[in-house]
Amino acid sequence: MSRKIVGLTVRDVRFPTSLEQHGSDAMHTDPDYSAAYVVLDSDCGLRGFGLTFTLGKGTEIVVSAIEALAGLVVGKCLQEIVGDFRGFYRLLTSDGQMRWLGPEKGVIHLATAAVLNAVWDLWARAEGKPLWKLLVDMDPKTLVSCIDFRYITDVLTEEEALKLLMNAQEGKQQREAEMLSEGYPAYTTSCAWIGYSDQQLRQLCTDALASGWTKFKVKVGADLQDDTRRCGLVRQMIGPDNILMIDANQRWDVDEAISWVKSLAQFKPLWIEEPTSPDDILGHAAISKALAPLGIGVASGEQCHNRVMFKQFLQASALQFIQIDSCRLASVNENLAVLLMAHKFRVPVCPHAGGVGLCELVQHLILFDYICVSASLNNRMCEYVDHLHEHFTSPVMIRDAHYMPPKDPGYSCEMLETSVQRHHFPDGDVWKRLLKK
Amino acid sequence: MSRKIVGLTVRDVRFPTSLEQHGSDAMHTDPDYSAAYVVLDSDCGLRGFGLTFTLGKGTEIVVSAIEALAGLVVGKCLQEIVGDFRGFYRLLTSDGQMRWLGPEKGVIHLATAAVLNAVWDLWARAEGKPLWKLLVDMDPKTLVSCIDFRYITDVLTEEEALKLLMNAQEGKQQREAEMLSEGYPAYTTSCAWIGYSDQQLRQLCTDALASGWTKFKVKVGADLQDDTRRCGLVRQMIGPDNILMIDANQRWDVDEAISWVKSLAQFKPLWIEEPTSPDDILGHAAISKALAPLGIGVASGEQCHNRVMFKQFLQASALQFIQIDSCRLASVNENLAVLLMAHKFRVPVCPHAGGVGLCELVQHLILFDYICVSASLNNRMCEYVDHLHEHFTSPVMIRDAHYMPPKDPGYSCEMLETSVQRHHFPDGDVWKRLLKK
Repeated sequence: MSRKIVGLTVRDVRFPTSLEQHGSDAMHTDPDYSAAYVVLDSDCGLRGFGLTFTLGKGTEIVVSAIEALAGLVVGKCLQEIVGDFRGFYRLLTSDGQMRWLGPEKGVIHLATAAVLNAVWDLWARAEGKPLWKLLVDMDPKTLVSCIDFRYITDVLTEEEALKLLMNAQEGKQQREAEMLSEGYPAYTTSCAWIGYSDQQLRQLCTDALASGWTKFKVKVGADLQDDTRRCGLVRQMIGPDNILMIDANQRWDVDEAISWVKSLAQFKPLWIEEPTSPDDILGHAAISKALAPLGIGVASGEQCHNRVMFKQFLQASALQFIQIDSCRLASVNENLAVLLMAHKFRVPVCPHAGGVGLCELVQHLILFDYICVSASLNNRMCEYVDHLHEHFTSPVMIRDAHYMPPKDPGYSCEMLETSVQRHHFPDGDVWKRLLKK
Repeated sequence: MSRKIVGLTVRDVRFPTSLEQHGSDAMHTDPDYSAAYVVLDSDCGLRGFGLTFTLGKGTEIVVSAIEALAGLVVGKCLQEIVGDFRGFYRLLTSDGQMRWLGPEKGVIHLATAAVLNAVWDLWARAEGKPLWKLLVDMDPKTLVSCIDFRYITDVLTEEEALKLLMNAQEGKQQREAEMLSEGYPAYTTSCAWIGYSDQQLRQLCTDALASGWTKFKVKVGADLQDDTRRCGLVRQMIGPDNILMIDANQRWDVDEAISWVKSLAQFKPLWIEEPTSPDDILGHAAISKALAPLGIGVASGEQCHNRVMFKQFLQASALQFIQIDSCRLASVNENLAVLLMAHKFRVPVCPHAGGVGLCELVQHLILFDYICVSASLNNRMCEYVDHLHEHFTSPVMIRDAHYMPPKDPGYSCEMLETSVQRHHFPDGDVWKRLLKK
């Protein structure tokens, strides 16, 4: 069977999360968690599902970008793509006319992520495995053949990547068994969005503690007095031994970040996330250096736009926690490169998730990272947000604050067709009703 | 008169330059120089024209992004916008939902550039001045009020920017008079696109020398043997005293860039432009360090996506020539920030131009830079490419290889309506004919 891709459809799916301030932070005060949702049809009937995450407005721009890429995918056989996945990756990211729109950043890269996520889903389904297991079972040579090493060979060559993967083969089966029984540790961001009241916050912390959560993230950055009260409240709720992280979502300039976080140091956060512009490598390095004596690390990555940026964040010792994203980077291919570079620099990877579909996707990558790359859980955990999972055919499974490895074939981002139709923007039922108001 | 903006139209305009290999380089082998072209209508009948430059495919994505921004512009009065231009800039670049698509990079930032270019054009027309003169006559306080200093205050504060502008007031009138009589020095890229034959190259060099050109750029990076022959040929044609620059358009990795350029050092290039990824600040710093002993500088900027990136290129001594772009950065506002930072670091600015409309636009910025910021012509020149000027109502005027200051009110990017209609994609006459083939 050739598994030729005969069609690509993309839809603009939006959830009105802003109505209840879910997902609100200092810079994104009213997000409507959304997705540009891709379905690939193959001639054998098998389908591949992929998406990229957005915050509402502008999703139609990403849809337009995916439509522009469709011609590079439709008509190709799955085997032809994955047999030279590096070449296919390069085809999508380096089109002589379209690369001007990035290159490898912004809308065009988000679109590339959605398309490639669908290709990986199709591949995993064709092999009858969940994506993490497809990766775990893949031989290191095939794995590195999926990576475009352009612009990162000064830090990681193909040969070196291969060696890192070979070295991590030891203990692999044991780690896979461990994951299947224990799951991957998670932390929760659901308790303390910036738009939530103190009462909500208290209730959510109480519930989360009862469900076994031990690691909590608090959104900060809009108002220092407010942050002090909220961080104090959460630290009081969770006690001195549980872990607290804070997240400013890029609200500050470099010097402001340092002084603001120093004021919150009393609450012993493990990290400050996105203290400033996601582009500011040297700024993050300065902040890291200033906060190191306080035992506070710097985390970033959900808007770090490609492997070249991550390379430099590592070279400059600018981050103590690397937060990969399954949709900001161009799918598994580029995330593999970042996982390997992070391992080389011994910086723990703690994925960004939440949104819609991000938990479903990124759990596969971090399982692979533990089993086949880092072999470590030290200072590592994957973000979890308790929203919108009900719209997926294979939603994440959390047990005792751990991600349990998915078992269904694919990359876990197939949405229920009824959900897609109801939330289709602007003509699904949900939006027709809201827009009428 | 309120000058309320009552309408925004945007059109996808493409020129089939790839048919004759105009604009071809090592990474963009078949560009169709294109523009997302914006017209603002105001209630008093005055119109503002703006554009962002693209390479063909994907222009419709930028059009979609401009349409998404239109709602933030239409309905506002010009005075309301320019009275708080920093606030308006922030409104466009920091929308809580749309900033996820960048932030401040890629398609959404190119779209912002087109919209703001049109606003600046409208402002200059309302004042009856060419844009450069509007800027030159503007008091420093108003100038800095147009700049968003977010994320750059660790290098340049508003107070410092004001001081730099105040200090440069001395000799301003004299420099303005000098520009009006002599013009701003230019170099030509029109002689040596990568797709041109040796014969074409010889002929174009001969013609350019006869027209008074003394500075020449050669595209390199696809094949070393080819580059050696072409650079040798150009150096032979122009002699030892004229200036040669080479441009690799991001073709190499860091180590490859260093060794390749060393092989071409015999031709005494002033700079190597875009040796590697435009995102690789530390990579450019390494290349700069390696090439400094050979007297070769590193230049980049046409794909440097915002002021935060330029800030770091300067902090890291990664560039010896800063190449601003009138459409990659978000219009005059962000370019002002970069001009001031470059001046602080004493790094010469040599704008990127060419494409369609880039020469028309950027000449205004570099005139302002000389008259009001840098006050220096040392190692400075503005790119010039001899294509597509005939489509503009106020095309650039070159005299003896110098840009002569434009005199018509506005930002010089109004296109002839007949040109827009003929090249409208895909239904203008030019494209109807080509697509039929």
